[in-house]
Amino acid sequence: MPVDNATLARMAQKLRRHCLESTAEAGSGHPTSCMSCAEIVSVLFFDVMKLDPADPSGKDQDVFVLSKGHAAPILWAALKEAGAIKDDLLSLRRYDSPLEGHPTPRSPWVRVATGSLGQGLCAAAGMAWARSKDGRPGRIFTLLGDGEAAEGSVWEAAQFAAYYDLGNLCAIVDVNRLGQSGPTMYQHDTAAYEARFRSFGWDAAVVDGHDVAALREAFARGGKDGGKPLAIVARTFKGKGVSFLQDKDGWHGKPVKKGEELQKAVAELGDTSLTVRVEPRRYPSVSAPAAGSPTLTPAYTLGQEVATREAYGTALAKLARASAGVVAIDGDTKNSTFSERIKEVSPDRHIEAYIAEQNMVGVALGLSTEGKIPFASTFACFLTRAYDFIRMAAYSKPAHLVLVGSHAGVSIGEDGPSQMALEDLAMMRAITGATVLYPSDAVSAERLVEAAANTPGLVYIRTTRPKTRVIYSNEEYFPVGQSKTLRASARDAATVVAAGITVPEALLAHDTLAKEGVAIRVIDLYSVKPVDEATLRKAAMETRRMVTVEDHSVCGGIGEAVAAVAAGEAKVTMLGVRETPRSGKPGELMKAHRLTAEAIVAAVKQLIG
Amino acid sequence: MPVDNATLARMAQKLRRHCLESTAEAGSGHPTSCMSCAEIVSVLFFDVMKLDPADPSGKDQDVFVLSKGHAAPILWAALKEAGAIKDDLLSLRRYDSPLEGHPTPRSPWVRVATGSLGQGLCAAAGMAWARSKDGRPGRIFTLLGDGEAAEGSVWEAAQFAAYYDLGNLCAIVDVNRLGQSGPTMYQHDTAAYEARFRSFGWDAAVVDGHDVAALREAFARGGKDGGKPLAIVARTFKGKGVSFLQDKDGWHGKPVKKGEELQKAVAELGDTSLTVRVEPRRYPSVSAPAAGSPTLTPAYTLGQEVATREAYGTALAKLARASAGVVAIDGDTKNSTFSERIKEVSPDRHIEAYIAEQNMVGVALGLSTEGKIPFASTFACFLTRAYDFIRMAAYSKPAHLVLVGSHAGVSIGEDGPSQMALEDLAMMRAITGATVLYPSDAVSAERLVEAAANTPGLVYIRTTRPKTRVIYSNEEYFPVGQSKTLRASARDAATVVAAGITVPEALLAHDTLAKEGVAIRVIDLYSVKPVDEATLRKAAMETRRMVTVEDHSVCGGIGEAVAAVAAGEAKVTMLGVRETPRSGKPGELMKAHRLTAEAIVAAVKQLIG
Repeated sequence: MPVDNATLARMAQKLRRHCLESTAEAGSGHPTSCMSCAEIVSVLFFDVMKLDPADPSGKDQDVFVLSKGHAAPILWAALKEAGAIKDDLLSLRRYDSPLEGHPTPRSPWVRVATGSLGQGLCAAAGMAWARSKDGRPGRIFTLLGDGEAAEGSVWEAAQFAAYYDLGNLCAIVDVNRLGQSGPTMYQHDTAAYEARFRSFGWDAAVVDGHDVAALREAFARGGKDGGKPLAIVARTFKGKGVSFLQDKDGWHGKPVKKGEELQKAVAELGDTSLTVRVEPRRYPSVSAPAAGSPTLTPAYTLGQEVATREAYGTALAKLARASAGVVAIDGDTKNSTFSERIKEVSPDRHIEAYIAEQNMVGVALGLSTEGKIPFASTFACFLTRAYDFIRMAAYSKPAHLVLVGSHAGVSIGEDGPSQMALEDLAMMRAITGATVLYPSDAVSAERLVEAAANTPGLVYIRTTRPKTRVIYSNEEYFPVGQSKTLRASARDAATVVAAGITVPEALLAHDTLAKEGVAIRVIDLYSVKPVDEATLRKAAMETRRMVTVEDHSVCGGIGEAVAAVAAGEAKVTMLGVRETPRSGKPGELMKAHRLTAEAIVAAVKQLIG
Repeated sequence: MPVDNATLARMAQKLRRHCLESTAEAGSGHPTSCMSCAEIVSVLFFDVMKLDPADPSGKDQDVFVLSKGHAAPILWAALKEAGAIKDDLLSLRRYDSPLEGHPTPRSPWVRVATGSLGQGLCAAAGMAWARSKDGRPGRIFTLLGDGEAAEGSVWEAAQFAAYYDLGNLCAIVDVNRLGQSGPTMYQHDTAAYEARFRSFGWDAAVVDGHDVAALREAFARGGKDGGKPLAIVARTFKGKGVSFLQDKDGWHGKPVKKGEELQKAVAELGDTSLTVRVEPRRYPSVSAPAAGSPTLTPAYTLGQEVATREAYGTALAKLARASAGVVAIDGDTKNSTFSERIKEVSPDRHIEAYIAEQNMVGVALGLSTEGKIPFASTFACFLTRAYDFIRMAAYSKPAHLVLVGSHAGVSIGEDGPSQMALEDLAMMRAITGATVLYPSDAVSAERLVEAAANTPGLVYIRTTRPKTRVIYSNEEYFPVGQSKTLRASARDAATVVAAGITVPEALLAHDTLAKEGVAIRVIDLYSVKPVDEATLRKAAMETRRMVTVEDHSVCGGIGEAVAAVAAGEAKVTMLGVRETPRSGKPGELMKAHRLTAEAIVAAVKQLIG
């Protein structure tokens, strides 16, 4: 039995009350940003959305993504009123509460962490894509702020959603006119937003965002599978419902004071005593392809020359055959990253995200929440474009999300610094909980692709442009958090720690030094994070001198990871990129930046004196 | 005397020939991406643009930014034909040549490095803003690819340019239908691009991009100061002019082979023997405000409680009074970063970039090329959004570009992880040549703002949300690359290295330990990069035990910077963020992540056994 408009309007007032009270209790938060969208949230949670308050899994239901994450209090309030959570709303922002200041998956109802603006629509597009491809029902709703619409990533997601006919996607823009520090760019010019969405291929409706009936009507326009995505541009007032807050500047991110001010505000909201029981509303169950735990067996020959980026593509295709959940997404570099190989298994398993890396990562995160094992690839340098998305993806605690960056380092050669990733290891290592893998040959590449698919959370794989020789047998395993000691003796004078393209150089250096009677240990640090502390510490203690060599900035990469473990035990010479590179042949650049066997030999000799 | 259309058309053919030859010689590069825009470049360089081939400074002239940086060969060819450079075009992509694979400032004609797509328009918008505000003539032209238009940052720049009425800005989109790995999203649907630019507030013209007369007519539409920016949507063919390349898939980033294939291609271009002399064309000189080398004198009281973010705002305003070149740009956080204080000097010196951090950094880079000293600020975590822009800005070797990130670390408290910067030090340190500064009190904040304005290149300043006590006298100096040893004795059992919010904690730990008879050294590492190796090494050798403590990920920040210097000399215990934080009070979070005096004391005790 549908809820009547008057009830939905009163529920909106009740949600406002909760937001005022919880932020006042917390002493911080964004009540006025919640109040502008109270009718939108009321209509969604108590009328439009198919939702089972007993089941936060999101399966066979509609999904809501709060892209304007600072409005978290109204999400918590709606969940509470719908009977979906039992948490005390007044525990908002407390250390012991899952009701954080911005949504995080500490609440099981949050599928993706938000709070950095412009990301929710990308993740929602990924969810919508997965539902659509798998023939599963359910609409994906996401609520954006108007200030947020200035983020370019919103328009990346918009073009993606229209291009892939995601009629199951609905974006609501809460046009409340006021940003954090002043009016937004377009204030109440709702026509500007409408024109944009239309120019990006969406259906769009402008409504009074405080008119419950108008909202219901607008929501009814969307949801057609294969149709246009729907944007509801809702004209609203920040702080709506309380005279001294409504449409007033200076009230962003500011709660009212407990006591008299709060009482005055709440009094203006009228009767908020109602409760609305939300009956479980679900779609008939349609099973999605199971993700599984795929295993692979490499089929390379020792000495064979294969680029790890190509080995990645080969492994990805094998993985896709082994696990129906594996999908690839790429930013118009699929022929360079070799992600296109998955098309041999099924063209539908490859998503062309075009040159829009932020949305690519956001979509991948959304896919993950729908049970996929997404592999998102581009040149490693262009993943810097998506750093904020990568960070937020990690906070979203995805079951699986694999990022693959190719063309790492100066060894790409002639294209020059804009195409060389020199910062990717630093940026990925800095993320709490991330796994960072860096194969040196085709066998380790395939094994690490397999490991990535079986490792929870965010995993990064770094691949190389030039071919490297296969040095591992197909039976070798590469557990995450370990390393390979490739050369060792009881009389090692130093340890060389290499990874990826520098592993062959380290092996060459070993042979050169051996001829001169100097023994060195060589470690392939294929698991850059977590790092194999035990092996590194042992090497540090046994050899007392270490040389690290990485095709990456000397800051934040392998050298410092090793120094952090070895400090106090060994002197560490770090070879890596210290100056802006330029165009040139790969060999010239490797030499100029001291990444060759020759440079390693020189560094070892200097260290052992 | 204007050049006739036939000559411009023939020059386009000659430019194509150069691109075919130089990339064939290099054995790599993107000739077909150059061939699609040959008429556009010909018309710009030999007719439309006011250009003095003898003067690459860009002053009193029009400016050209090649946003689709992979078309570098045609930029080099046009500059050569215009008499602006003497370099051998056949040296393209060679290690000893300034003619790199993508434009870099190794050629004096390149104002901003490009090659990561979607950035040129942002920088161009910054240049246009500076010209417009200073009342200086000159049009800013930037050439984009159609694939590139998928980047959200393009639309951030588009909305910025329209909002600020940058009629002196002109974007040309080379709609050649083909991306790297296949057709673009919209192929030859030029109306889609036109509608978008119009919906973002631009004037737009669709033209045949190979029709010289049509291009001249389109260019004539723009350039009105205070008018709408102009987008020229040019329908073109990739590989235009050579039958076996034109509009063919599979030819992205692929040169023709030297010898027969090249000869066949060149033969199709017809007579390319012409030369066109470019007479110096300049605007009357209008001087811009001089940047100067500002100095500041702090005026704080020891023990005063001031947040470094607020001290930043105060210093910025003082700096703006001292130097006319100083401008601030912010992403709707000006009341939190305190950048709004510059408005007290002049509202015109503050640019509201709204919530679009990529464009904000790109605009700042453009401002820098026009002689400004730009300070771009937002929450430090949101600078991750612009990492690709920051990287490319560093490669652009700006005279001055200061980024300021506020609200760093878990000490922000209740807002939760989405608003905490935990990766910013790692990401900034990894960039070759960047300077990273981190004040701990108001005095050091002001001094470091002064230092930033006087340091060439990219500088990052990290500020803190909570108030900290002033511990330095106003006469203290903070040279880049040094540190402050706050406590030291001949019998120090360990060294604690802190920065920013952890400096007061380190001092407290010192006092606690002193009461127990344990002396420790305390170093304020305000210059995170370059780091004070001499002082750190001395401390490592003298105390043999070090504890680092940072409100940042333990990966890639202060701990590893210290470990890299101290390895072999001292054991290093690194205190920092290792797990995803959550909402809570700042004190609770500092404690949970072991960043307090108590944690430092415990770490020191454990180290000294």
